[in-house]
Amino acid sequence: MEAARNICLLIAYDGSDYQGWQRQAAAPTIQGEIEERLAIITTKSVTLYGAGRTDAGVHATGMTANFHTNSAISRAQLQKSLNSMLPPAIRIFGVREMDGAFHARFSCRGKRYRYFIQTAPVQPPFSRRYALHTPAALDDERMQSCLNTLIGTHDFSSFENSGSRDKEKADGRGAVRTLSAAKLQRHSQDMLSIELTGDGFLRNMVRNIVGTMLQAGEKKIGVEDFRAILTARNRSLAGPTAPPYGLFLSEVLY
Amino acid sequence: MEAARNICLLIAYDGSDYQGWQRQAAAPTIQGEIEERLAIITTKSVTLYGAGRTDAGVHATGMTANFHTNSAISRAQLQKSLNSMLPPAIRIFGVREMDGAFHARFSCRGKRYRYFIQTAPVQPPFSRRYALHTPAALDDERMQSCLNTLIGTHDFSSFENSGSRDKEKADGRGAVRTLSAAKLQRHSQDMLSIELTGDGFLRNMVRNIVGTMLQAGEKKIGVEDFRAILTARNRSLAGPTAPPYGLFLSEVLY
Repeated sequence: MEAARNICLLIAYDGSDYQGWQRQAAAPTIQGEIEERLAIITTKSVTLYGAGRTDAGVHATGMTANFHTNSAISRAQLQKSLNSMLPPAIRIFGVREMDGAFHARFSCRGKRYRYFIQTAPVQPPFSRRYALHTPAALDDERMQSCLNTLIGTHDFSSFENSGSRDKEKADGRGAVRTLSAAKLQRHSQDMLSIELTGDGFLRNMVRNIVGTMLQAGEKKIGVEDFRAILTARNRSLAGPTAPPYGLFLSEVLY
Repeated sequence: MEAARNICLLIAYDGSDYQGWQRQAAAPTIQGEIEERLAIITTKSVTLYGAGRTDAGVHATGMTANFHTNSAISRAQLQKSLNSMLPPAIRIFGVREMDGAFHARFSCRGKRYRYFIQTAPVQPPFSRRYALHTPAALDDERMQSCLNTLIGTHDFSSFENSGSRDKEKADGRGAVRTLSAAKLQRHSQDMLSIELTGDGFLRNMVRNIVGTMLQAGEKKIGVEDFRAILTARNRSLAGPTAPPYGLFLSEVLY
């Protein structure tokens, strides 16, 4: 029998000390931490369906995840209980009542990621977990020009790590995805971010794009080189995978 | 024989995982971490004189500390070596060559501290180590009015934790200190800071002032109550000691 309620959580987390979103038997994960508290609160074992996985060390300001329950707990009480039981690295920002058909992953129309890069000569200790540090001066204009080539529908194989797409292969899209926005933003003299909005992202796609963007920012490659990397559909031509700690899942679009 | 060089380090640190500045035999401290690397780099045991101690969990963006050495290492190489050997929670932002009489503590004319307070309904995980969280709405104007009463020369016994002033007792000042500035600043809708500049600070003085300011911000006490607490010279009348993780030593004045 189907549970009476379908509840969606809006979640932020500092992924520094977690092995990613997805539950693992022997390692702390975001999904595992939340499911454990939900089981206590609802007095039943709970499966939480996340909008997607994030890798070890990746953060989120706007992850969504739903679960089914017969518990009569109010939304406010559920949020309060979860936040009092969860470690402060994981926070529930919202609790929504959804119709039965909603599924955090299958109903998702897109996602927005943001990657932070800090260009100070010495990185302040307070951002070391949340921004990639490079002492190099970066060419913002060239980076934005590269980002512009990504907008639209492309085969992103050049930015896809091998061994991925276990589930997506079946949907016929292959490595084709559509990016609706790709923006570089300067937050201060030494802090910038790259924000990508798309209908889906391949494994490590944002981090591989950022790793290649940095080569453009440091003027090791030009915009035409960047475009050639994209159209070559060959991972070995792109730059290295940027580290996980600069990456934030900032929004899931429905 | 006196060492040939007197070098001052400009230091930032995330104090979250340290038992404060001062060296301890069995616990990780900022002084201990830096002295250990200096001994390797200069091939001699080194004593580092900090501008002051910070308590366990307190951060710094502008700590200073000096040491004497006969090493011929360049300032740039010293900074580079220290930053490559130190954990990323401790960063050397500057290295200065001082005359022989300079002492980071005895030459110090004052200090500036900043305390961060976040008033969001739910605290984002990324600031949990760097700002006190209170979901209460705070009355900025009342808090600034209280801060104004602190400016000038006062006996700050009401904001001094007992058992302190081991060294300062001898200098005849007792608990009398002069604050030249006391400012509340709103950095965003839910983030504010309290910045205090003075010729010296008693043990836990900033955190005790902040704990009492919060009572004013929550309208539990008024400006006249706050002024009465200051003039009473009685620690038991003031509010609780605010936690260490919101506090930053932001500048040492010479």
